[in-house]
This record gives sequence, structure tokens and C-alpha cells, in this order.
Amino acid sequence: MAKDKLPTQAENFSEWYNQLVLKAELADYAPVRGCMVVRPYGWTLWENMQAGLDRRFKETGHVNAAFPTLIPMSFFEKEKDHVEGFSPELAVVTHGGGQELEEKLAVRPTSETIIGYMYSKWVQSWRDLPILINQWGSVMRWELRTKLFLRTAEFYWQEGHTAHATADEAMEETYQMLDVYADFAETDCAIPVVKGRKSETERFAGAQMTTGIESMMGDTKALQSGTSHYFGQNFAKAFEIDFLNKDNELEHAYTTSWGMSTRMIGALIMVHGDDQGLKMPPKIAPIQVVIVPIFRKDHEKEMVMPVVDKVFAELKEAGVRVKVDDREQTSPGFKFNDWEMRGVPLRLEIGPKDVEKGSVAMARRDIPGRDGKTFVSQEGLLATVQEMLDTIQTSMFEAAKKFRDDNIHDPADYEALKEVVQKGWAFSWWCESAECEAKVKEDTKATTRVIPLDQPEDEGNCIVCGSKAATKVYFAKAY
Amino acid sequence: MAKDKLPTQAENFSEWYNQLVLKAELADYAPVRGCMVVRPYGWTLWENMQAGLDRRFKETGHVNAAFPTLIPMSFFEKEKDHVEGFSPELAVVTHGGGQELEEKLAVRPTSETIIGYMYSKWVQSWRDLPILINQWGSVMRWELRTKLFLRTAEFYWQEGHTAHATADEAMEETYQMLDVYADFAETDCAIPVVKGRKSETERFAGAQMTTGIESMMGDTKALQSGTSHYFGQNFAKAFEIDFLNKDNELEHAYTTSWGMSTRMIGALIMVHGDDQGLKMPPKIAPIQVVIVPIFRKDHEKEMVMPVVDKVFAELKEAGVRVKVDDREQTSPGFKFNDWEMRGVPLRLEIGPKDVEKGSVAMARRDIPGRDGKTFVSQEGLLATVQEMLDTIQTSMFEAAKKFRDDNIHDPADYEALKEVVQKGWAFSWWCESAECEAKVKEDTKATTRVIPLDQPEDEGNCIVCGSKAATKVYFAKAY
Repeated sequence: MAKDKLPTQAENFSEWYNQLVLKAELADYAPVRGCMVVRPYGWTLWENMQAGLDRRFKETGHVNAAFPTLIPMSFFEKEKDHVEGFSPELAVVTHGGGQELEEKLAVRPTSETIIGYMYSKWVQSWRDLPILINQWGSVMRWELRTKLFLRTAEFYWQEGHTAHATADEAMEETYQMLDVYADFAETDCAIPVVKGRKSETERFAGAQMTTGIESMMGDTKALQSGTSHYFGQNFAKAFEIDFLNKDNELEHAYTTSWGMSTRMIGALIMVHGDDQGLKMPPKIAPIQVVIVPIFRKDHEKEMVMPVVDKVFAELKEAGVRVKVDDREQTSPGFKFNDWEMRGVPLRLEIGPKDVEKGSVAMARRDIPGRDGKTFVSQEGLLATVQEMLDTIQTSMFEAAKKFRDDNIHDPADYEALKEVVQKGWAFSWWCESAECEAKVKEDTKATTRVIPLDQPEDEGNCIVCGSKAATKVYFAKAY
Repeated sequence: MAKDKLPTQAENFSEWYNQLVLKAELADYAPVRGCMVVRPYGWTLWENMQAGLDRRFKETGHVNAAFPTLIPMSFFEKEKDHVEGFSPELAVVTHGGGQELEEKLAVRPTSETIIGYMYSKWVQSWRDLPILINQWGSVMRWELRTKLFLRTAEFYWQEGHTAHATADEAMEETYQMLDVYADFAETDCAIPVVKGRKSETERFAGAQMTTGIESMMGDTKALQSGTSHYFGQNFAKAFEIDFLNKDNELEHAYTTSWGMSTRMIGALIMVHGDDQGLKMPPKIAPIQVVIVPIFRKDHEKEMVMPVVDKVFAELKEAGVRVKVDDREQTSPGFKFNDWEMRGVPLRLEIGPKDVEKGSVAMARRDIPGRDGKTFVSQEGLLATVQEMLDTIQTSMFEAAKKFRDDNIHDPADYEALKEVVQKGWAFSWWCESAECEAKVKEDTKATTRVIPLDQPEDEGNCIVCGSKAATKVYFAKAY
């Protein structure tokens, strides 16, 4: 159980996070080591995220399907890097229906292998390409050091898997889905991101190129929240996804995969949250507006509740996700704190004086205290609320972006880099050698996070070894 | 791979089904014994079903959440009937992260146990009740004799789990969800159902009462497609879901569970399908309208395509799920057969003559050949199409209901019963003894399907043993 009062972020960011997730009833620890239960408030948030992503997937021509949860162990052996990356993390089914199985099955850690197998059955000619399939579900990667939403054995995600006739088309798809993730993160979640390539060391097992989006959390650490991989012909060779091209020659297809998970909820909490609790961006908030009726006596209640009901009905009718907190044995002050902690973007208070004046008190979650509170007319309230929700969405993005930009540093030398990555990100020239990357990690615990797609036109010297460098990269500690 | 031509239903109903599922690309066999892959066309159908159900769940006050896929084996031991029912069907994880596990884990066959465990943590007082949670996902019940959608080791479903302060309220919930399933089946899927209780023999493992909806397939066999269970305090006792009631006394809660699965897709295929293939009810059809442009020469194409594009845009804009089949190396006749096989409810053909006349040829899937084809004006086409989709929905339901009612018999005696259950259902008096039920099963392979909630007011004599009977039941062979 969560304690009554959260630690502040400054006191203990990690404990602030752990307790807030429980207290806001986003998730709970499961009785299976390393696993989580996503509670209704957290799952509704995920459903809203799913809707935002799924719409974008379908607009870019993708369809959903479902592949089995269990994968024959031999499938992992077919791609050398993939098996190295995933076999230490597998949960293995050895018995079914009371019998020992002839071939052991893994609970899927990711589905490139079994989907590759199916694509090889479905693809014969260039006419069968591209295949643009996404799957929503959960995956299992054995992990005992749990941090809810960020690191659990089972987590929820989507995994897109596409097959194409040409390398160019597959590469285009890889970048397109990176753009989809970035747009979703920035537009819907109000989380500013850097798009870029990962270093060789940080690549997905079996990929020729991994791209991702990277964001800065409230403690200045980095978090990767969506990745898009280009496999070239690696998986097509391993699983014989072959097709007759227009010249009637047999060719291997080119494949990609891309995923975003419930980690994004962790990012949301850590980018926007403050000492009072969560701050939900209006576009994906499970509850966008909470109405708190204010009264002491019965005759006040009789005045207030009809207005509360009318406002509720008007907002709900228009599609606003609105809730009335009509708990009787709870004080308004308790309710204010409770909904602030749960991050509801906008609170409306309606008391006897408001009824008399035809007004409503409106309090923004993103601006605490009196500065965020105004009195607005009941007339035209729907439009006022909708505008305010847009304003909050924008201002949450701007605040997160300012915080991030303020904490990105351009260290003059390696000594300065070692210092700045303790309290922010360093954006520095790098020679792209694994040695320099490893040295930074050993000296500072910071890693190369992402090589932005937009690079400066000039050149510089590697911040570590001083040799000529054509690439700037973000170094940061990361979740 | 499916053969080119389907067998007729009369030739071999079972093979007609198996081949149609493959040919229409609804699903495919997975490389894991007993498992299936749901392909995009089948999954889109399931998504449409999910939307229809999820809307109804939320309208009745339920919320979604997610519980772990893996369940500790010891959890199953806590409810005697439950473990007896499910332990022979479990897939068991014995190793994780390269280590043998201290406690083995089952891939969930259903989630009463782990959800019960969590509810016991979340419930303290009557204020915490009711809990009304649903989960979308897949479950695993070891099964090697696969029939796609009807019987697979892994299948997709939703499972609702609720906890209440009183028996009455839990019983009301059980019946409410049965009504939700019946309404969904009849309104959205155009499948007429009988609502009722299951016999003791046919109850869910651990339930005090199981209710279900039962439908008649095209071969007159019965199929159960949604069930709603009342557990009384069985699971609350086993998992200690206890609460302080308003008198401050500790009580066990009352729980229910209810589920509907991808079996419903099997029902849809077998209720509506014919020798030409699938027939999708418009409300849940992945594609509601297909437009086939008709032209031979380039100047005809130039005439036809702008009209096709205009009609497509108009329908799509209005939310109709519409597709243009613009494949160039495929004849219109091939396309007609192909979309008929895939069950698209309405086909529009637009050729040069239609362009000249301002008309469109409109062909209904539910009325084959010329009788189902009319020429309608391009003006007001959206309204024409929407009305026709409603008409098709209604007439598919009526046709299925007539077929079912025509095949329900009222046998005069046991000899007659033995005959009629070979080619339909018997609706007969039954003394509710397990012996009589078992005798029917042994003699005919028919079982008691469902005891309808609406019972005649009179009494009769058991069709098997002749003793006084207060209950009429449906006997039928079933999937």
C-alpha cells in the first residue's frame, strides 16, 4: 500500500514515482514475481494511448492481426543475434495438458520469429507485398527488478511487422513509424522527443538499424519510449520470406518492426508529474474534467446539484471525459487534493455563490494554486472548457520542452562532460567508436542515447578521444 | 492452403467451414500445435465485435484492466471444483531467465483466481464494492484437436469479473451480462439466441449457476457463444475477498464472471454462410460495401474512375466501411465471386453505361443472383446504401431465426426425440436429473443445451423417464 503522503521529487524521485503509481491506482504489483496489474485508471490511460496510435497506424495503411503467445524454442535459433539477445530472458513452457512437450515453447518476448514464419507462408510474389501488420498484446522478458511500467517481466505494447519488396521501401517504413511515434508523443502526450538512430551497441538484437525517440524525465534522466527497426534481409533469410520479383527472380523480402509499450505511461508520469502527483495531458487523460459540488446544508445542495447535473450533461454530450465527485462523506479540500494527485487537467467547482452569480470556478492542474484558478460564466462553458483543455495541452508541452532544453549541455571537454551528465544531457561530437562509448559509460554511467537525424553541417572532434567526428550524439543516464 | 473451390455445405459442412476460414483469410494454422493465427480480415471482424461489446460493457458501468498472463499453480488449488475443471488443460511454465522456477506458473486458462487474489487486496469495506472490471486478452486451454475459432489451445476473448456486497446484486449482474450478450448477438451479429441456465453437468468449474446464450448453426447443431456465471461466495471464500458491511461485520463478497470469445466468429460463419462463402452482417462487417469498377478500354476507365472515386469518397466520409477493388489484372466476374466468398454485404458496380445513366448497380450478398441486384440513382446514393445495409441486417436476422425455428421440434416421445436431435433441436420436458441427461447423451450424442429463462406455465412429463417435470430444455448436438 502507498503511504498517505508522497515524498517530494527532490527528496527521492524514484520513491515519489513508485508511490504515486500505487496511490493514483494506475497499477499494482502482481503475485507473480516481476509482473504488474494495470488497474482501471492506468488501463483507461493506455486505451486512450492505444486509440491515438491505432488511428495513426491505420491512416498509414496498417492492419491489426493476432499471432500466438507461445513460440517454438527452435525459432529463436534461426537468427544468430536475435537468439543471443533474447534467450537469457525467456519464460519457457515445458508441459501442456499434463504431458511433457516434445518441443519447448517460449512465452513470446517479441514476435519477429513467428511472424516471419507466417509471412513466408503468405508471400509468394511481389503482388503479396508489402505486408503491413500490427499486433496489440503483451510480451514477457524475464526480469525480477520490477519498476511498474518501466521494467516488468510482462508488459503491454504493440509490435508492427512489415515486409517489403525493396530496401528503400522498408527503410522508408522504418522512418515513417519513427515519425508516427514522435507525433503521437508530442501531440497526444505533450512529451517533446528527439528522433534518431541508436548506436551499434544499443541496437535491437538482429536489426541492421534501430531508431528511437528519446525524452527527458523530471530528474533529467533519458527514457526511450518507441523504437523502429530496419532488418534488411536478416529475418527474411532466416525465415525464408522469399518472393518472385517483377522479373520473375526469387528474392528475399526486406522487413521492419516497431513497437511502443506501457513504458510510455512511465514517461508521462515522470515528464509531467510534480510533488502533488500526476499531470495528465488533456488529449489522453482518462478524466479530463472533474466537477466538485460545494455545499454544506441541504438547501445549498438543492441549489447546487441541478447546475452540476446540467454542466455535467452538457460536457458529456459534447464528448468531454467528465466526472462528478459526489462523495458525501468527503470534504471539498480532500477531493481537490485527490484529483490533483490523479492528474485531472481541469477542475470545476460549483457552490451556492456560483449558482447565484451564474459562474463556475475553474482550476488548472498545470498551474497550481490561485494563479491557475479563474471564475468563468456558466454561459458558453463548453467552449471555455474545450479552449482551456487545448491551452493546457500546449502549455504542458512547452513546459516540458523548456525543462529539457534547459538541461541539455554542450560541454567544452571530457571533464565537463563527466560533470554535466550527472544533472542533464550532453550533446557532443563523437567518433562513433564503441571504445569511446564504453569509456563514457564506465566513467559516468551515461550512455549514448540517440544520434539525431538532423545533424549539424560542420564537423568537430570526439569529446572523448579528440579524433575527427562527423556525428553529434546525446550522452545521458537513462532508465 | 485452401483448395480453389469450396465443398458445398450439403456435401461436407465441416470441410466447407475449414476451407472457408482459410480461403477468406480469416485465420490460419499456427506452427504451434493447437494454436491459430487470426489474419487481418478476421481480426478486423473481431475488432468490430469488441467495439460492440466494449460499448455495452461501459454503458453498464464496467471498466477495463489487465492482469498477468501467468498464474501461480497454487492459486488453482484454492477452489476445489475449479482446479478439477482446469488442471488437465494447463500449459505450464517451469523455467524463467534460464533458471528453474521455485513455483511453476500456468498460462492463464481463465483469470478468476488471480483476479480474486487482487480483489482481496483492494476490498476492505462495502464502499469498495461493487468492483466491475473486464479484461480483453487471450487464454490457453491445452487442446490438440483444432478447429479454427471453435476449438483452439489459445483463443481470444474478454472476461468480466465482478464483486458485490449482496447475492441479489451479483445475481442481477449475472443476468444483466447475459442480456448484454444476447443483445449483441441479435442486434450486431444478426444471430438469434436462446438465453438460459445450463444444467448442473454443463456448469463452469466453480460456479453456482452458469447462464449462456445458444444459437443454431447452419447444420442445425447448437453452439454456446457467451456465458455468465454466478459464483455466490465460492471464490470470495477461497481468495478471502472480505469486506466490512454497513453494520461493521466482516462478510465474504459475492462474485460473477462472464465471457465471450472468438468462437463468436465461428458462429457467425456457420449461422449465415452459404455455398458461396461468408455473409457478414453489415453492423460488424470489416468491409460493408465493395465498389467494382467495370471497364475494358482506357477511355471507359477514364469515364468510370472519377465516378468510382466520388462515390467512394462520399461513402467513406459518412463512415461507411467501403473499399474499391481496382485490381487491374483481375476480371469483374472473379472480383464478384471473391467478395461474395468474403461475405461483403453490398457490392456496387459502376460501368460506362452507369456513368451515362447516372446509375449504379447494387447487389446484395444475402440475396444471390438477379433477385438481389437493382439499379439505383447516383443521386442520394449514400442514403440508399445506408438503408440497404439496415435492410440486409434485419433480413439476415429474420432468415436465421426462421431457419432455427423451423428446426426446433417438439417430439411426442423418447423415440421421436432420438430421431429429431439428428436433424435439429428438441424442446422437451425434463425432470432435471443427471441420469436422464446422460441417457440422452449416450443414446443420441445430444446434450442439454440450455434451460430457457422463459418457461411455460404448465407442467409436463420428462421426455426420458416420464416422471413429473417442471422444466423444458433444449436437447441438441453441439459444437
